[in-house]
Amino acid sequence: MLKPLHDRILVERLDEETTTKGGIIIPDTAKEKPQKAKVIAVGPGKRAKDGSLIALTVKEGDIVLFGKYSGTEVKMDGRDYLIMREDDILGVVEA
Amino acid sequence: MLKPLHDRILVERLDEETTTKGGIIIPDTAKEKPQKAKVIAVGPGKRAKDGSLIALTVKEGDIVLFGKYSGTEVKMDGRDYLIMREDDILGVVEA
Amino acid sequence: MLKPLHDRILVERLDEETTTKGGIIIPDTAKEKPQKAKVIAVGPGKRAKDGSLIALTVKEGDIVLFGKYSGTEVKMDGRDYLIMREDDILGVVEA
Amino acid sequence: MLKPLHDRILVERLDEETTTKGGIIIPDTAKEKPQKAKVIAVGPGKRAKDGSLIALTVKEGDIVLFGKYSGTEVKMDGRDYLIMREDDILGVVEA
Amino acid sequence: MLKPLHDRILVERLDEETTTKGGIIIPDTAKEKPQKAKVIAVGPGKRAKDGSLIALTVKEGDIVLFGKYSGTEVKMDGRDYLIMREDDILGVVEA
Amino acid sequence: MLKPLHDRILVERLDEETTTKGGIIIPDTAKEKPQKAKVIAVGPGKRAKDGSLIALTVKEGDIVLFGKYSGTEVKMDGRDYLIMREDDILGVVEA
Amino acid sequence: MLKPLHDRILVERLDEETTTKGGIIIPDTAKEKPQKAKVIAVGPGKRAKDGSLIALTVKEGDIVLFGKYSGTEVKMDGRDYLIMREDDILGVVEA
Repeated sequence: MLKPLHDRILVERLDEETTTKGGIIIPDTAKEKPQKAKVIAVGPGKRAKDGSLIALTVKEGDIVLFGKYSGTEVKMDGRDYLIMREDDILGVVEA
Repeated sequence: MLKPLHDRILVERLDEETTTKGGIIIPDTAKEKPQKAKVIAVGPGKRAKDGSLIALTVKEGDIVLFGKYSGTEVKMDGRDYLIMREDDILGVVEA
Repeated sequence: MLKPLHDRILVERLDEETTTKGGIIIPDTAKEKPQKAKVIAVGPGKRAKDGSLIALTVKEGDIVLFGKYSGTEVKMDGRDYLIMREDDILGVVEA
Repeated sequence: MLKPLHDRILVERLDEETTTKGGIIIPDTAKEKPQKAKVIAVGPGKRAKDGSLIALTVKEGDIVLFGKYSGTEVKMDGRDYLIMREDDILGVVEA
Repeated sequence: MLKPLHDRILVERLDEETTTKGGIIIPDTAKEKPQKAKVIAVGPGKRAKDGSLIALTVKEGDIVLFGKYSGTEVKMDGRDYLIMREDDILGVVEA
Repeated sequence: MLKPLHDRILVERLDEETTTKGGIIIPDTAKEKPQKAKVIAVGPGKRAKDGSLIALTVKEGDIVLFGKYSGTEVKMDGRDYLIMREDDILGVVEA
Repeated sequence: MLKPLHDRILVERLDEETTTKGGIIIPDTAKEKPQKAKVIAVGPGKRAKDGSLIALTVKEGDIVLFGKYSGTEVKMDGRDYLIMREDDILGVVEA
């Protein structure tokens, strides 16, 4: 498995047809489409200037929205994932 | 529902024909049109460098003005929303 | 009425024919024309890194000069206003 | 009169034919010509991150040199002035 | 051998056909392809503003993913290496 | 005379034919030619964020090297000078 | 001799045919070729925000690698040198 570094998170895109409990649907025509994904793994946090770690807010299993052009794609065991920084996350979908 | 991260807020545009108590009307011809919206949800705040959170000023239910190109559009349960950072908010309409 | 956020201020342009006590006249031919306005409302101040607020210097009623391209226009009750950051203000006209 | 904000200063250009005691003459052919001016008014200083003011070094009456493209022009009582930040000042002419 | 400075690390690319225990395969068609490498040497860490060193998270022997355009190539004893900053590392492959 | 502000210094170019004790000769063909000058006057130093001054390293009389495009030219009493920031200085020629 | 300022170092390029103990050879075809040099002199260090100096890691006599476009060329006593910031150094070659 991949352990993200610092404030990065590993997510797996959710099929846009999938209906979450919150019923979020991503508009096709928006210029910068947000996208929905499940958080698979999170980094230990960003390093503060004194060397300590500031833990991330997002946690494994969260359903998150992020901007269309965020992150870098990787493939693991035949499935597509994205690695991005937590700051690229717009919000967490709550049940 | 969507819980915004950090210093982001979720807003819903108000119909420009709607007249608020303050009577604000958005000019059509302005190059960068401000826009009016209702705050639906706010993030926990921006993280200070020591890891603490600085709470937002804007709160749920506020009517706010923001620049035309601010934010990212999302659709939930058939209604359009915008996610933006609190710093994109120009001001709060007071009754 | 509109309450500006953070270090933003709401101003109303003054007619350039109006003569203030200080007698400031804006040159027409300058490449980046400063402009004169009356301060209508001010934000609570900019947040310092520790979360406290640094109050603004400019106050309601001040006559200020600002650069031509500063601010965002809004219309309230049929009158034109501008919202800008205090740092866009060049100076305050003193009687 | 105009009271500059923060770390801005108000200056009045000196005629380039004027000879100061230090005898500084501005070269016509330099790509970015420095220019000479008299300080008319200074701001209270730049705000430090803790909200305190750091007073300016330049004071009213100083003869200063500044880069050609620095500042914004304003006209008061028929005379031309410039408003710029203290950091645009290259040096003070000493008698 | 080469000792990286500050927060830089020295890595050796892994053959993309090599299958790691985590089974990560890099997609050929991705616009910004992540790449896999083995960490050969790490710097002492980034200097904090007080002059102390913040040690790196990545250590010698780690298998890491990084963006395609990260780093500078060097050749040692006929083998190709890359030097990059730890912040260019997307994540560590865990067994 | 001119008193440089903050971290600026006033220098006078040295004739490139002049041979210093260290024997530095500036190459004519280098894309960004360093240049040699004598320090005529230095500013009081850069202001730290707490308002104190950090004194400059370079002092009056030093022979310094600087990049070709650094500084702003001024003429005083028929001689050419340059005003630049201390950070534009590459090094001090030691006897 | 030249004493570099702040966090700058003075280096002399090593002939690329020279074989160091670590056997590093610079690839000719790399887009941004690293280069090898011997450190001739180092600056006192970078100033921290409180005015203290943070000493450099690199020391006189070190063999270092740096990016192709780093530094400014100077000639002393007929030999070519480069002045660059320590942060342009990729690593130190260890015996």
